[in-house]
Amino acid sequence: MKDQESQVADIGSLIAAQKAGYALAQPFYLSDAIFAQDVDRVFYQEWQLAGHVSEIPDAGDYILFEMMRESVIVVRGDDGKVRALANVCRHRGSRVCIEPRGNTKRFTCPYHAWAFNLDGSLFNARMLGQDHDRSKLGLKSVAVEVFHGLIYVSLSDAPASFDHLRVDLDPVLAPFGLARTRIAHRESYPVQANWKLLVENYNECYHCTAAHPEFARSHATHMAAERVAPLNEQMLARSKAAGVPTDFVDCIGSLRPTGSPDYAYNRYSLFDGYFTGSEDGAPLAPLLGDITAYDSGASDVYVGILNPMLIYCDHALIYRFVPVDKDTSIQEIIWLVHEDAQEGRDYDLTRLKWLWDVTTIADKQIIEKNQAGVNSRFYEPGPFVEMEAYTQRFIAAYLATLTTN
Amino acid sequence: MKDQESQVADIGSLIAAQKAGYALAQPFYLSDAIFAQDVDRVFYQEWQLAGHVSEIPDAGDYILFEMMRESVIVVRGDDGKVRALANVCRHRGSRVCIEPRGNTKRFTCPYHAWAFNLDGSLFNARMLGQDHDRSKLGLKSVAVEVFHGLIYVSLSDAPASFDHLRVDLDPVLAPFGLARTRIAHRESYPVQANWKLLVENYNECYHCTAAHPEFARSHATHMAAERVAPLNEQMLARSKAAGVPTDFVDCIGSLRPTGSPDYAYNRYSLFDGYFTGSEDGAPLAPLLGDITAYDSGASDVYVGILNPMLIYCDHALIYRFVPVDKDTSIQEIIWLVHEDAQEGRDYDLTRLKWLWDVTTIADKQIIEKNQAGVNSRFYEPGPFVEMEAYTQRFIAAYLATLTTN
Amino acid sequence: MKDQESQVADIGSLIAAQKAGYALAQPFYLSDAIFAQDVDRVFYQEWQLAGHVSEIPDAGDYILFEMMRESVIVVRGDDGKVRALANVCRHRGSRVCIEPRGNTKRFTCPYHAWAFNLDGSLFNARMLGQDHDRSKLGLKSVAVEVFHGLIYVSLSDAPASFDHLRVDLDPVLAPFGLARTRIAHRESYPVQANWKLLVENYNECYHCTAAHPEFARSHATHMAAERVAPLNEQMLARSKAAGVPTDFVDCIGSLRPTGSPDYAYNRYSLFDGYFTGSEDGAPLAPLLGDITAYDSGASDVYVGILNPMLIYCDHALIYRFVPVDKDTSIQEIIWLVHEDAQEGRDYDLTRLKWLWDVTTIADKQIIEKNQAGVNSRFYEPGPFVEMEAYTQRFIAAYLATLTTN
Repeated sequence: MKDQESQVADIGSLIAAQKAGYALAQPFYLSDAIFAQDVDRVFYQEWQLAGHVSEIPDAGDYILFEMMRESVIVVRGDDGKVRALANVCRHRGSRVCIEPRGNTKRFTCPYHAWAFNLDGSLFNARMLGQDHDRSKLGLKSVAVEVFHGLIYVSLSDAPASFDHLRVDLDPVLAPFGLARTRIAHRESYPVQANWKLLVENYNECYHCTAAHPEFARSHATHMAAERVAPLNEQMLARSKAAGVPTDFVDCIGSLRPTGSPDYAYNRYSLFDGYFTGSEDGAPLAPLLGDITAYDSGASDVYVGILNPMLIYCDHALIYRFVPVDKDTSIQEIIWLVHEDAQEGRDYDLTRLKWLWDVTTIADKQIIEKNQAGVNSRFYEPGPFVEMEAYTQRFIAAYLATLTTN
Repeated sequence: MKDQESQVADIGSLIAAQKAGYALAQPFYLSDAIFAQDVDRVFYQEWQLAGHVSEIPDAGDYILFEMMRESVIVVRGDDGKVRALANVCRHRGSRVCIEPRGNTKRFTCPYHAWAFNLDGSLFNARMLGQDHDRSKLGLKSVAVEVFHGLIYVSLSDAPASFDHLRVDLDPVLAPFGLARTRIAHRESYPVQANWKLLVENYNECYHCTAAHPEFARSHATHMAAERVAPLNEQMLARSKAAGVPTDFVDCIGSLRPTGSPDYAYNRYSLFDGYFTGSEDGAPLAPLLGDITAYDSGASDVYVGILNPMLIYCDHALIYRFVPVDKDTSIQEIIWLVHEDAQEGRDYDLTRLKWLWDVTTIADKQIIEKNQAGVNSRFYEPGPFVEMEAYTQRFIAAYLATLTTN
Repeated sequence: MKDQESQVADIGSLIAAQKAGYALAQPFYLSDAIFAQDVDRVFYQEWQLAGHVSEIPDAGDYILFEMMRESVIVVRGDDGKVRALANVCRHRGSRVCIEPRGNTKRFTCPYHAWAFNLDGSLFNARMLGQDHDRSKLGLKSVAVEVFHGLIYVSLSDAPASFDHLRVDLDPVLAPFGLARTRIAHRESYPVQANWKLLVENYNECYHCTAAHPEFARSHATHMAAERVAPLNEQMLARSKAAGVPTDFVDCIGSLRPTGSPDYAYNRYSLFDGYFTGSEDGAPLAPLLGDITAYDSGASDVYVGILNPMLIYCDHALIYRFVPVDKDTSIQEIIWLVHEDAQEGRDYDLTRLKWLWDVTTIADKQIIEKNQAGVNSRFYEPGPFVEMEAYTQRFIAAYLATLTTN
């Protein structure tokens, strides 16, 4: 209801009033103005996972990355290079590429048949007067990075640099051979809640005991630190023997190098009898990359804040947090297996996806109840406990994002 | 589109421009700013019916009262007392109680398992640091009143007092024994219209001749006053004999005691051959309370403006007007019968609900057509006739509410 | 988010910044404030087609014209005159007439039974005090014009005059005898796009080659002007012989007489073998009006910008562009045939509607893709080609409308 300027001033006061160690104030979940800021400063800036190189192995192969009102073509060129192009015709703005994936020699707009090469340059604009500079009428480029086979795009004009992240994460990710995986399954879970409630939920396991019995009986992250430590120590010995990286990386929030996305890597132990994130503890698929044995651990990986990753010895998962509007989000999961693994022969999809499917469905329920309560005039942000430290770090980083120029 | 302050100023001008004796101007039904004021000044202030004591007879019994974004737990404590608690966890704001009704020893939040006693006090907050004052982390209290078995809640910090209302209404309600009734049925009718059009409709019977033949043939309220008077006189003689209260109370609008909700009581006659509000005039259920015979009358009762009540000799109805948004409301009806009455043996539900079901369905149609026309740029508020006096009183009281500080 | 005044100022800057020969900037398709202006300055001002006189031949016959929140009764009076009345009761604003078409002696409001005569005057207001001037409580009049049997209404207080339009279009329309047609079919195509994208699409045939193979193989309008000219010359000879008007009229935009709606008439050739707009080129229905033979041409007619018409020798079509909201519109088509033509005997409805049904469905697809792309932050208005001249004229006229006081 207020004008833009006074709303932005309000955001400043809200941030100033935010009590350390306490949950966010109500307007961060309800205000249209703050959601507009979230879109501008988070979703149009951050790197986001668009897909995996195995989806576009050949020249002309493409997939679409879609987020809110944006559509980006991710395409492999004749030169083998992966490029990202804004899916917006330079004539009257139509979407140029309609199918979500495919192979093509060039992109021809369905409206007036303007055609663009795989590198985005204009191939043909029927009847266009000769006074127009065709070299300036190509599809616009979008920032793209290929990182261990994962394709990230950023809609920003000045996206954060992958330089530090590559130096620090390359050695710990290399043994998992993510570039040599493929997508076994992806699933979207619509959640009636602001995107921040999804991210807050993902970043703490204080709720795991009450909400996730399937997860809690196999993963040792929902207990006090002193009980977790000895389990992790035993695991690290196994990890070393199995070729699983044991160095930890933490470059989140205040620890993040200037101009870099947040990133982190750490590994934690499963309970006895669990080789991987399966219902019965038994292996689910062929070992990834150069791993030689099960260390009964799982790695938490962050490449930016929007696409956390979880790597077991025999499969990996990537989360995507996607806003739809202020009150609606999509939680998407992508399951990766070794590129040679065949469904039916080497893994059973139902078993593979079981744990994080039940866990995400449970999360959807509690996150929606969280939003319902946050909407109330009686909502008052309460105190975090120590186990919610990562959620607190997310909130601190998020608030910093809103205030940075 | 305008900022909050100038919108509020606009409301002032609108109220000043409002012509006495004429319907409300269009913005009262269409403006987002005015609807926000309606919510703040009416729905977060007024007392609203949450239920009946028969729904929560035992310690630990609870029901939820839900309105727009709010959820309130109404619960009977171990001490037998009825309390109302904001259904918002003091940790991160989740709804604490999910089921709409039940019995429990305490309320445990589904998110992180914080637990609260029946009086709202914090029972347990797992892993919460010892530096937090647990006595300040209980569920917030909401104002509640139990009145003749009816449970009313107010979301206000300073709700109106029941003192005058009890003094004046206790004697006229007592003979009906409402505390000794139970809910036979409740039904919600969604209406695509602003809530005020529902209240305006309820408060006048000028439309009854054209819109409600079922009602008009049995109830003597849709005719000119001089034709109604003799019928009422005959009824009052019967009422006295049957133990039905005959004193009238009118404390609405300018007659309302300071700091009190609006309230009123009056009884009017049915036509010959109608003992109660039934299709054929025949009785529907056992006589209520201390009533000894049918006086062929009906009582209009107001406890606040949002939950008018209608009491026949053998059953009562309570209306609830609930906003969903500016253009959508819910009209809910609750039917009460004697607590000993058994469905099938003592009453037939289809017959019991017939009259007000058909009448409310007809009202839904005409109210929606009213909203459709009010939306037009050609809408111009027209003159009220005398039979719309109660609607005019509602409008006057509503406008006063918008201007009171 | 901004207040009304600064938004309006923004529109001024946007218009000033608009580059000639380029598509409209993004806010013209996305801004709430601009859509509000579109409604006020276009849809509440322009003449719009409400129906055909053959729908209301007798006294008391009526149809409703509905657009956004408005409803207008178009009714033939006892005096044979066609009138348009705002469908809003002068008492409390209810819609008075509910059925979309019918015959009645008078209009009685379903709420409180106020009754209005066919000329809108108040017939009866039950119980209304004698101090009210009944002559001022009639249904409000809406501007209406009957033009060659077509009924146009305008919601404006000061609608544009039909004087010039009648002088110029009467002679070229008369031979088609549109007053002696009837509606064979009407169909609505909902389109998820701003209304201007529909009008822009209608006004150029640059997209026809790529998008409309059915149209492009029969109609000679999608080619460069020099290839079209000889075909049209041959047609005009045939037209003269067949009694089809061959004078062209162009009073659009800067050529429009002051105080008049835009209007135009021109005729263009079909390809060899096509007598009319049919799948196989064969005739579809009896010849219209005074036409004596097929000239294998089609006339483009504009009466205002919102209801373009297409007249073949044996049938005519009228388009209606109707906004629902900023992002949603309805494209409606009305097919007219000779009043004596009987379905089954004289024409086959499936064949009659085939061409413009497939064409409009294809347009819906490309217009929606256009909107999707225009929504992107990467959208940048591109250059028009010469074949899009009419679309450019529409845009120029539209921008002028926004700036006129």
